[in-house]
Amino acid sequence: MGQSSSLTITLDRSSEVPLYQQVQTQIAQLIVAGKLAPGARLPASRDLAQGLGVNRATIASAYDGLAAEGLVRSHVGQGTFVLDSTEPQHAKTLTWPLSRAMEAAGRHLLPEAPPNEHPDPIDFASLIPDEELFPIEPFRKTINTVLRRQGKQLLQYGPVPGYPPLRRYIAEQLAERKVEATAEHVLIVNGSQQGLDLVFRALVNPGDTVAVESPTYTAILPLLAQYQARVLGIPMTERGMDRQALEVALASRPVRLIYTMPTFHNPTGITMDLASRRTLLNLAGRYGVPMVEDDFDSELRFDGQALPPIKALDVGGIVLYLGTFSKGLFPGLRLGWIVAPPELVRILGRAKMLTDYHTSQLLQAAVLEFCERGHYEVHLRNLARVNRKKSQLLVKAMTDYFPEDVSWTEPEGGYAFWVTLPRHLSSEILLAEGARAGVLFSPGSQFFTDGEGQQFLRLSISRVPADRIEEGVQRLGKLIERYMTREPQRSPQSAGEPVFHI
Amino acid sequence: MGQSSSLTITLDRSSEVPLYQQVQTQIAQLIVAGKLAPGARLPASRDLAQGLGVNRATIASAYDGLAAEGLVRSHVGQGTFVLDSTEPQHAKTLTWPLSRAMEAAGRHLLPEAPPNEHPDPIDFASLIPDEELFPIEPFRKTINTVLRRQGKQLLQYGPVPGYPPLRRYIAEQLAERKVEATAEHVLIVNGSQQGLDLVFRALVNPGDTVAVESPTYTAILPLLAQYQARVLGIPMTERGMDRQALEVALASRPVRLIYTMPTFHNPTGITMDLASRRTLLNLAGRYGVPMVEDDFDSELRFDGQALPPIKALDVGGIVLYLGTFSKGLFPGLRLGWIVAPPELVRILGRAKMLTDYHTSQLLQAAVLEFCERGHYEVHLRNLARVNRKKSQLLVKAMTDYFPEDVSWTEPEGGYAFWVTLPRHLSSEILLAEGARAGVLFSPGSQFFTDGEGQQFLRLSISRVPADRIEEGVQRLGKLIERYMTREPQRSPQSAGEPVFHI
Repeated sequence: MGQSSSLTITLDRSSEVPLYQQVQTQIAQLIVAGKLAPGARLPASRDLAQGLGVNRATIASAYDGLAAEGLVRSHVGQGTFVLDSTEPQHAKTLTWPLSRAMEAAGRHLLPEAPPNEHPDPIDFASLIPDEELFPIEPFRKTINTVLRRQGKQLLQYGPVPGYPPLRRYIAEQLAERKVEATAEHVLIVNGSQQGLDLVFRALVNPGDTVAVESPTYTAILPLLAQYQARVLGIPMTERGMDRQALEVALASRPVRLIYTMPTFHNPTGITMDLASRRTLLNLAGRYGVPMVEDDFDSELRFDGQALPPIKALDVGGIVLYLGTFSKGLFPGLRLGWIVAPPELVRILGRAKMLTDYHTSQLLQAAVLEFCERGHYEVHLRNLARVNRKKSQLLVKAMTDYFPEDVSWTEPEGGYAFWVTLPRHLSSEILLAEGARAGVLFSPGSQFFTDGEGQQFLRLSISRVPADRIEEGVQRLGKLIERYMTREPQRSPQSAGEPVFHI
Repeated sequence: MGQSSSLTITLDRSSEVPLYQQVQTQIAQLIVAGKLAPGARLPASRDLAQGLGVNRATIASAYDGLAAEGLVRSHVGQGTFVLDSTEPQHAKTLTWPLSRAMEAAGRHLLPEAPPNEHPDPIDFASLIPDEELFPIEPFRKTINTVLRRQGKQLLQYGPVPGYPPLRRYIAEQLAERKVEATAEHVLIVNGSQQGLDLVFRALVNPGDTVAVESPTYTAILPLLAQYQARVLGIPMTERGMDRQALEVALASRPVRLIYTMPTFHNPTGITMDLASRRTLLNLAGRYGVPMVEDDFDSELRFDGQALPPIKALDVGGIVLYLGTFSKGLFPGLRLGWIVAPPELVRILGRAKMLTDYHTSQLLQAAVLEFCERGHYEVHLRNLARVNRKKSQLLVKAMTDYFPEDVSWTEPEGGYAFWVTLPRHLSSEILLAEGARAGVLFSPGSQFFTDGEGQQFLRLSISRVPADRIEEGVQRLGKLIERYMTREPQRSPQSAGEPVFHI
């Protein structure tokens, strides 16, 4: 142990700071400044008390405080010694035990897709809109307009439930689709994903049951797992979620929420007809179960007239409607909305306030201006033209190149086509072979709540170039044909950071 | 009951759709189209089976399906009748039982501030930056640059943890403050509020204890309540969170996290000195408790050299550091960041992915360009000049106009000044009188974990014009003086949607 040290300490007896604290602070500063070296012994408290003309208890308090701060340590009978405060006293790196919520979510994330092994793959996997079609220049102009006109307002904190003129605009647009809504029914969120997160946060307790279509949107499963909800997979029929299976489920247990995608369902592409929408809603109403209608891509109709959303039939106010600009416009904006009874919008607004206060007003105002100038309508017409063409090319190619035993849905819009393989085939094995052969798609099993669905796969037309559709389907058709004539193999494993796929 | 109906049904015996389903679908369509009116009786199943040349069980299945869909109802011995499917069968509006999480959060939200009763109030309440100082025009130019240069990329989905060049830039900036970080240590979030939400989501289980300073940031309390955490308030000293009280707490129970604002603390304005930072970190390390360092406004130093953040001392990697552009630049961007060990950034990234996928890349790229052009530095220098001036005016006015028994902190930066009234006074009663007299401030009790703190109030210099500070303090000083000479009153109640105050 080192030498006893002499200290220069100045007390201000007129200060409101207690004397012991003055002593403690000044010694702490000497230690941190290196003027009291590690190992140095502090003066005995009696000596320092005498030297400063204070009570010995004052010095004892100061030394106790320094010890509590980890700057000194007292050894009985030896004195008080300066510790090495520049060295942290925790040697080991902390491990990070996760919350049960995140542990549960992690178990439902998917492995990353296998790496591309082909120099020139044809991509039917991604449901992400094609950025080559983005109307960047009109958007740049509108963001300029709103920044010039009201930059101070738009870069300041804004109202939690959203930019009021955008809330009004969305309500008006929905009125054209027969949804009775005012601005008070609309909450602006960072895309549908946040809409789902807020709804579950506000309404779902651990152990609650949530009914979803099986197959369904992959990101719903880890999110529900995070809220420790039980997921009840209801089979899909050609007319959407199977009402008979749902009624059996509703009759047998309490269900907290029903989650459905009635239009251009992901991954099956199926659209519920009007009768089915009505009966699904009535069923939910009879059992008093709220319904989340995820209308993420209904703008992407190839042609013809859109059906009213379930929300339009919702006289009782049990439907929470989710919309987004992510599929029809720019995914990167992270801009979507919830339509719900005003009392629930207020509650969801509290959840929004706690999670990130509000969505960027600048982006909200720019998109509103963009829509009001008619750019969104033009863009949607352009998308419809492109996607209608791609859809026709895909159906023709599947007819030409897929074996007889393969069937598929023919959606009226959106990006997703659902392909059914002969029962003994596994799309997961095809996936790895496809990656090598240069054709990418989504295996069916990732969309099912029970891990089944190996005989299905999803083809998306969003990013594949129109002039490569035929070639891609031809490649895939060959793989399927070759596969049909040989023995089944084991599914491959993949490593890497787990994700969900859009 | 109505007449028995004749039906026109066409069966396609070559279709893959089962016959019962063809019957069910066609009858459903007739009902929804109004061609089968409510009350109409369907043909007896035997008759219809005969007419269509199918098994009677086929028709029974179809009718069962229609009943399950809520379109018809069977009465034994009478037949099967069409229900009124246009009328929802749930008459009552659903009530919305909230999750326990939201219920708990709601109990910790504050009542809205009382309405302004004065025509020309002087605002010391708001901690929101003054938009009159916003550098809108340079920001408009940078957003143009990045949209022209890389619009397609920036409006597309982007990487979950953030725009890579911004992550690198933030790491480099922190290196200048002695924090060892690379891009992999940085996660971009929608402001510090989302940073907190993600940290709690990933690490806190219901029932866990989180230690916070008392007083502290008001929004932390409802957020922790939402995660059903126990909040442990640790008193503030003049050198920050009381380490002795914290050590007593850590020794007596498991603590999951420590949350601290070591620089320009909200609401007290106190900055922890270097020795205190070091000892707080060592204390956390000795007990193996991770620490959240909320560095929300350290850019707002009036002058002089900044202290290194606690994160700079964090060799063991136990500090989760939160930064933001909300106080130093534009609150409405909703742009902040977490710095943490890469393993934890990956986990927090999963939470981010599930909550809203990622933060707008356009805003991230625009702010990066803005910083790289030097605009942020210029803006911070401007803010420092304005705030230094306001700070001096406020201190002078308090010295001139506050009664002897009133004391206050003198922060080195930020916006918050913490005023201590004589012990028997209540800032909540002053609040209502202040609203009438035209001087607004924040009562101390809203910042305390236990509802105490009536004798404190917070004055913020962020939005008050420099030339009204003297008048505002004079008004407040008069109220305090008058109050000191009379009997205590009860605190007023306020109604309205609960909020938290920034």
